[in-house]
Amino acid sequence: MKNLEKMFYPKSIALIGASDKEGSVGKTISENLLDYKDGEIYFVNPRITKLFNKPVYKSVLEIKKPIDLGIIAVPAETAIEITKQLGEIGCKNILIISAGFNEIGKIELTNKLLELQKKYNLNIIGPNCLGFLNLQNKLDATFNSRKKLNLPKQGNISFISQSGALGIAILDLANYDNLKINKFISYGNAIDTNECDLIEYLYTDKDTDVIMCYIEGTSNGKRFYQTIKEVSKTKKIIVLKGGLGKKGGGAVKSHTAAMIGSSETFKVAVEQAGGYFVESIEEMFNLAKTFSIYKNINLRNIQIITNGGGFGVLVTDQIEQSGMPLAKIKKQTYEKIKKNVPEYAVIKNPIDLTGDATTQRFITTINYCLEDTNVSGIIILFLFQLPGITQDIIHEIINIKKQAKKPIFIMTIGGNITREWINKLKDQDIVCFKDPSDFGKTIKKIYKK
Amino acid sequence: MKNLEKMFYPKSIALIGASDKEGSVGKTISENLLDYKDGEIYFVNPRITKLFNKPVYKSVLEIKKPIDLGIIAVPAETAIEITKQLGEIGCKNILIISAGFNEIGKIELTNKLLELQKKYNLNIIGPNCLGFLNLQNKLDATFNSRKKLNLPKQGNISFISQSGALGIAILDLANYDNLKINKFISYGNAIDTNECDLIEYLYTDKDTDVIMCYIEGTSNGKRFYQTIKEVSKTKKIIVLKGGLGKKGGGAVKSHTAAMIGSSETFKVAVEQAGGYFVESIEEMFNLAKTFSIYKNINLRNIQIITNGGGFGVLVTDQIEQSGMPLAKIKKQTYEKIKKNVPEYAVIKNPIDLTGDATTQRFITTINYCLEDTNVSGIIILFLFQLPGITQDIIHEIINIKKQAKKPIFIMTIGGNITREWINKLKDQDIVCFKDPSDFGKTIKKIYKK
Repeated sequence: MKNLEKMFYPKSIALIGASDKEGSVGKTISENLLDYKDGEIYFVNPRITKLFNKPVYKSVLEIKKPIDLGIIAVPAETAIEITKQLGEIGCKNILIISAGFNEIGKIELTNKLLELQKKYNLNIIGPNCLGFLNLQNKLDATFNSRKKLNLPKQGNISFISQSGALGIAILDLANYDNLKINKFISYGNAIDTNECDLIEYLYTDKDTDVIMCYIEGTSNGKRFYQTIKEVSKTKKIIVLKGGLGKKGGGAVKSHTAAMIGSSETFKVAVEQAGGYFVESIEEMFNLAKTFSIYKNINLRNIQIITNGGGFGVLVTDQIEQSGMPLAKIKKQTYEKIKKNVPEYAVIKNPIDLTGDATTQRFITTINYCLEDTNVSGIIILFLFQLPGITQDIIHEIINIKKQAKKPIFIMTIGGNITREWINKLKDQDIVCFKDPSDFGKTIKKIYKK
Repeated sequence: MKNLEKMFYPKSIALIGASDKEGSVGKTISENLLDYKDGEIYFVNPRITKLFNKPVYKSVLEIKKPIDLGIIAVPAETAIEITKQLGEIGCKNILIISAGFNEIGKIELTNKLLELQKKYNLNIIGPNCLGFLNLQNKLDATFNSRKKLNLPKQGNISFISQSGALGIAILDLANYDNLKINKFISYGNAIDTNECDLIEYLYTDKDTDVIMCYIEGTSNGKRFYQTIKEVSKTKKIIVLKGGLGKKGGGAVKSHTAAMIGSSETFKVAVEQAGGYFVESIEEMFNLAKTFSIYKNINLRNIQIITNGGGFGVLVTDQIEQSGMPLAKIKKQTYEKIKKNVPEYAVIKNPIDLTGDATTQRFITTINYCLEDTNVSGIIILFLFQLPGITQDIIHEIINIKKQAKKPIFIMTIGGNITREWINKLKDQDIVCFKDPSDFGKTIKKIYKK
């Protein structure tokens, strides 16, 4: 197993290709690295002497200090020379951002890198990648420009992506959607450190509980299967595969030159090994959020509570399709709820508190259901638009969730106000859905296991 | 066929149950009606004399003018008496908001209403419904409170919903998602005017091109089938059914007391009749948007253009699964594009303009593809986060779309900036997707026909 600890937690970093040129990859990485406080940053570029008030070295050989991580953002040919220099001075971890290797057929350059990797016993991430981001220690070694994207909040979900651009977009969506990330790694051509090495590293990473992967292919199916099998014993691993069909597979070849297995084999392998195979980004996010909050979720049945009859109907359909049983509340729970709601409320599953339901009517009912041992989890379907519901409900739900021993899910349909309220819930680690069919897909995956 | 023209385009309206009581259904409807300028509004309530600076009548009998539409928002027992009075003064169209009829087992009250309907030859919508909204003439006869929701913009999509609360939430989402609505009708218990009558009316409505339906059941499967068959000749009809399974069906009984057919039969019937059966709100919206803009869409193949290789891979997978062929551009198109993009761009399908693609590179490529007769439609996958793309692209795409004879779809993944840019496109009637799997579902439906 590769030891990547110093890659992600370096005491010193050299950036080769640091730059002051507006809009360049080198400048963006330089800027992003400035947030890092847990180690020294050395900028290297023979053509400039100062950058962001820091001295710039002409070459890595000039630094004369141990370097834990070298980041290379110079053209492919030069990158080889730099890799050699880093090897010579004892730097073991190298992130190569530079493109122009096997993905455009330059096999000889790739082979030279591999020779150096062996000679100096290096860990290389890349080439042809976006870099990585560690939100745990604020090490942003990517060329994401912060002008067009906000970083997600820090959490326990790590994400590895064979595609850099898609990776950025997904990070951006994670910020928007309040998905909390620990580490993000774009691994590009994976000539040395590949998806298995990264998954193994994240397995040992105490700050990661959930691993999301965007993978276009693997060069070693057997190892991939065994890695997932091992990791799944204690962590959740979710795989979104690009290149499922013949055409998509063709697109992969032009993209990261990955080896592609049959998609069906891939899916079966992931699931048999104990991982989760998803078919959309939305599904990946919903599952990751659920596992990040409920690590050892054991959902055997579920109670629906709503203020919208039709909403209850749609979600009941989805739960039924997922195979998850609906909970059957005890007679005493029924009696307790009955005393606290109007006669026309329907106390079955779904519990329909009807369109005039107040915040209080919801809270009482939720609490009684949570106490019932026949109920292993709750989904609350809110139509916030209806007049009885006041904004206090957000605060109340956050309190209930903090104390509850059972999973609580929220679903809403709506526009601006709904989004605003829901963001407060998401921020407090409450799993929120926005379409019945999304919820159905998620619990189908949870229940199958 | 019912003549509902005066229901939706009345020259005079009486609201019985108009009220000044804060938060009441009566006050909300009174307020919503104030926007209506195409006819007289008469408020009726024996306990008040003035409301929003208008006189309030003690009874409908006091108005002494012809009434095209009577809206009843008083308790169920009183609603019967009012219906009789409206019948006596020759009002033919009645919207009954009031609940408390067959949905809570009060069959005798329902029967009394039906007797009056026959005696006076009335069109009754409801009871137990939210009302209706006609954005064409700004007639809002619902008790949606504007405090918690913004109305959608006016367009050519009409929406009928058996569930009122779900209907409100979907309207709210339509505003947020820029889905442009013409008429929204919540029809509740449907004791007289039912889904078939409404679909038939919308068939004759020149401002409606697309009909979305949320339906829990139908009392006359044969008529429903024939209605869809007839309507589908010139308009698009999209059906989301609540109560697909056994449990969901149970929830329907407690909700609107609708008769439920077997879900599989229902689906097959809708599709055989030429309608579109969808399984989620998201799917309904995507399909409705597409049809609202491209009424007679004939998509035989599609060209993908992107700046994100991985994004292209995911969408290729989805298109392949949908059965839609990928377009094969002509050799001369290839040559023209080749001259205008860097060597490393991949000119296949997908066309990967790569991560540094500029706005100009996109525009040139899109135009060449649109000129190619081998291409019947285009999907552009934008990662707006990447540095080469400037905001001008929004303006450029809007211009291209205005002139293009072929459908253009946009897909993006991302957060705040992405949403902001996309909203500008949506506002100009450009169909935008946010997940590859959503696009796959939509084109599968379009291509199947």
